Amino acid sequence: MHNNPTAAVLLIGNEILSGRTQDLNLRYIASKLSSIGVRLCECRVISDNRNAIIDALNTLRKSHTYVFTTGGIGPTHDDITAQCVADAFDVPLCQHPEAVRLLSDYFSRRNVEANEARMRMANVPDGGVLIDNPVSVAPGFRIDNVFVMAGVPKIMQSMFENILPALERGAALLSVSVVCNLPEGDLSAPLADLQEKYLSVDLGSYPGKHQTDIPQVALVGRGSDHQKLREVTVALRALVADLGGEVIEVTDV
Amino acid sequence: MHNNPTAAVLLIGNEILSGRTQDLNLRYIASKLSSIGVRLCECRVISDNRNAIIDALNTLRKSHTYVFTTGGIGPTHDDITAQCVADAFDVPLCQHPEAVRLLSDYFSRRNVEANEARMRMANVPDGGVLIDNPVSVAPGFRIDNVFVMAGVPKIMQSMFENILPALERGAALLSVSVVCNLPEGDLSAPLADLQEKYLSVDLGSYPGKHQTDIPQVALVGRGSDHQKLREVTVALRALVADLGGEVIEVTDV
Repeated sequence: MHNNPTAAVLLIGNEILSGRTQDLNLRYIASKLSSIGVRLCECRVISDNRNAIIDALNTLRKSHTYVFTTGGIGPTHDDITAQCVADAFDVPLCQHPEAVRLLSDYFSRRNVEANEARMRMANVPDGGVLIDNPVSVAPGFRIDNVFVMAGVPKIMQSMFENILPALERGAALLSVSVVCNLPEGDLSAPLADLQEKYLSVDLGSYPGKHQTDIPQVALVGRGSDHQKLREVTVALRALVADLGGEVIEVTDV
Repeated sequence: MHNNPTAAVLLIGNEILSGRTQDLNLRYIASKLSSIGVRLCECRVISDNRNAIIDALNTLRKSHTYVFTTGGIGPTHDDITAQCVADAFDVPLCQHPEAVRLLSDYFSRRNVEANEARMRMANVPDGGVLIDNPVSVAPGFRIDNVFVMAGVPKIMQSMFENILPALERGAALLSVSVVCNLPEGDLSAPLADLQEKYLSVDLGSYPGKHQTDIPQVALVGRGSDHQKLREVTVALRALVADLGGEVIEVTDV
């Protein structure tokens, strides 16, 4: 249908799979990619395990225009992402001269010892290009179609802002939504009819508040065609009115 | 090392990959599984796409003791999970008599039409066993080692509570943590030494507050051996003290 670039996200970290940490990175990356028309097709969450990282990376990088990883690039022993990326690409892990300079300057300004552990953060797979980290200096890197970023959301976001301009763009994935007070079971048939009429728009239905007995359902249309999305918004409003429901909120393009 | 059951989570829904919805199900399931000693090895997030669902399901169910899916079992056209699970297992999708009874009773009590869309929620792959839904009645189901649950967190949680007793248990994954005011770069070497000494405990280091210039790092040990975890807690406290740091918070087993 269209030739939008595609992407996968790879979240690396035992802390997500143990339930310790609530991931916040997927949604951030997903929103940003939608806005520039890169289709996020899948996300995988894996542990800090060498084979798991290499396998997932080699599968995903062959299937998508881009792969974005988060996590595992700090100075401690459980930070093994850079080495695994090097191994996945079958290239050596090398000290990156610019990363060494950035980190050395930063540590000396802050009177912090540039010890072996800290300088490990200057290691990048051969051929990798640095991704700037305005928050805490230690850089991420890009190699081929893989972008390797920190796991701390604030740092990841600052890195992502820096790589955004370099990404190939597709038609932005836009969304419209009509929130109403009808139950999904009443909306289902007319919504399916509407979906058949607008094949270029993905229609979804998302029940909200279950605290009260009043149903609240968001009818969402996603696509890249402004005109079609506007038509869908009008049609969704009409659909709700026809069923005797009330429109609570509308978000149009 | 141990024969703990393993698991994968499969989150199904365009709304997560578009950035519309912040997933809250993974962390909930992860925490519950940790507490009963089921090792969550991976999570995948995919869209409401037939091939994506079937492929992921068939890969994951062969690799793990259990697979838990969330999303796509409501009454609307984009709810295709039940059909996809049936296709993955190569069995027909059938009306489940008990589900029909539950839903019919519920709709008649609430004076809601038991229309075709609503009664679709009684469809279960042949051989599937219902998972009770105390929140909104429409059941999930289990087939073989796959548990199919709703995507709405409150409903998913109530379903998960009902399947928990049926799950095989392993040694609970416990964690201890020592939060301190030292930077990771100082902690790295002694932490790596400690990791070598306690191979049955996974040691991780997680930087926290980046708002201020004072570092805050959580040193976390995960494992199933109470005694070793207690020793690790003592060792982590000593490690922080040796480096001249302060312990801010301790969580022991």
